[in-house]
Amino acid sequence: MRDFNEKTITDAVIQRFSGAPNERVKGVCDSLVRHLHDFVREVRPTYEEWEFAIDFLTRTGKICDSSRQEFILLSDTLGVSMLVDAINNPTDGRVTSSTVLGPFFVDDAPEFELGADITGNMRGTPAYVSGSVSSQDGTPLAGALVDVWHSDDDGFYDVQQLEKLGGAAGRGRFKTDKDGKFWFWTIKPTFYPVPTDGPVGDMLHAQGRHPWRPAHLHFLIRAPGHRKLVTHIFDRADKYLDSDAVFGVKEELVRDYVEHPPGIAPDGSKRDTAYSTIAYDFVMAKQG
Amino acid sequence: MRDFNEKTITDAVIQRFSGAPNERVKGVCDSLVRHLHDFVREVRPTYEEWEFAIDFLTRTGKICDSSRQEFILLSDTLGVSMLVDAINNPTDGRVTSSTVLGPFFVDDAPEFELGADITGNMRGTPAYVSGSVSSQDGTPLAGALVDVWHSDDDGFYDVQQLEKLGGAAGRGRFKTDKDGKFWFWTIKPTFYPVPTDGPVGDMLHAQGRHPWRPAHLHFLIRAPGHRKLVTHIFDRADKYLDSDAVFGVKEELVRDYVEHPPGIAPDGSKRDTAYSTIAYDFVMAKQG
Repeated sequence: MRDFNEKTITDAVIQRFSGAPNERVKGVCDSLVRHLHDFVREVRPTYEEWEFAIDFLTRTGKICDSSRQEFILLSDTLGVSMLVDAINNPTDGRVTSSTVLGPFFVDDAPEFELGADITGNMRGTPAYVSGSVSSQDGTPLAGALVDVWHSDDDGFYDVQQLEKLGGAAGRGRFKTDKDGKFWFWTIKPTFYPVPTDGPVGDMLHAQGRHPWRPAHLHFLIRAPGHRKLVTHIFDRADKYLDSDAVFGVKEELVRDYVEHPPGIAPDGSKRDTAYSTIAYDFVMAKQG
Repeated sequence: MRDFNEKTITDAVIQRFSGAPNERVKGVCDSLVRHLHDFVREVRPTYEEWEFAIDFLTRTGKICDSSRQEFILLSDTLGVSMLVDAINNPTDGRVTSSTVLGPFFVDDAPEFELGADITGNMRGTPAYVSGSVSSQDGTPLAGALVDVWHSDDDGFYDVQQLEKLGGAAGRGRFKTDKDGKFWFWTIKPTFYPVPTDGPVGDMLHAQGRHPWRPAHLHFLIRAPGHRKLVTHIFDRADKYLDSDAVFGVKEELVRDYVEHPPGIAPDGSKRDTAYSTIAYDFVMAKQG
């Protein structure tokens, strides 16, 4: 086949996939080429614009390293990550909604006893976080693995400042007790910008958008027989709840931090300074 | 805005571009998000597939360097480059069709007198290449700048083996004479595979496709008052004309190599060995 024009080239490319050994690969490539070509036919790029796109993608790849994933950030800021999340976790009102994992999860976070303080060398306002994990039928899930991680008062995660902090901070793994409950101490996270010193930052600027994410605590919860739950708890007082740069906010994930004066905390400990409390009861979907 | 589902997130993302200072940026981003989200909704990727896509794009960026552009190769092999070419160079039957530039053009190729031999330290069957450059109204274009470059007998360009060849080879720049004519000696190029040791090679393999391009001579021709012409001359004997890995073949760009025994060549020189001749008369489009 020869002499393709802007209408015939799409079928010509797709026809090349006819011998693909894997049906899923074939189907995904067919769909990719149809939608990609439709996009190109619609915007009719000049050569200069095509070259810009090639260079943008190349720079996006080049800036990735072990602690930065710019293509995930691109996916997040174009709403693709939350779309993939929505496709894989249809909400049915009975189980806790999921949201983006983000780039700062660490799979070997330090394990703590319930009630521990995971602040490490971060600084900020003390917060008491508590809640429970149950199955969609209401059964409390004892021994569920609860990973939590969050940024500090300046909006940075421990992995972005390991040298300064000397190790994990604002990050820990817990097991729920026999009633499916968990509780621990940490500090209140704040809103923060996604990284803006790379191609995605340039894109947000060109799109006339701000780079801010509202303050949140990350949770990743695992329990046998249940679908892994990746979610956040958001701070109801945050000004960016309605304009999260990565489209991750769900109303049911928003909670209040309640301020308390110095005194006896819910876990019976005596606090010399003011502190906040926040709570969430997670409901997990049964597998399959 | 909060609580996006797989249907509402697309408009939510597009709404974020409403303040983009540049209308073209806004239009391209709107279109990109609509088509990208349509693609994702259609294929419904699992998390693992999304992670594979992120990793594929990252590896494609990482392998790019000063002599390799894997994103251009991805664009070429998905038919996007020829689609952009078709959009920017609609054929009207009067002017020579364009095709892909490819990654091996060099903008400061050595200049030669007409009739020179540009083989350098490449090896292969001698070929005499001749032709003319004229405007779409038939006027011969004297002094047109004709860049030519091609691979060797093994399918490699000079820039892929500079150390071995010691400099430019199978590459040169000529100026047409007063009648718009050009002629020079070189060797016959052969078919060759696009690079297959990177992510695009893996993709072609998964798609059940071969990586071959039919043998061709690259031309880039510039003349005042005319649109730059980027094209190839293909060898009619090549077995890959109907399955070019980058979809670049146009029937009007296919020509015969005519074999000749030793003797007096068309330029009057005496040849001690057999040689081929090939010719093409290029017609350029007037600018705007």
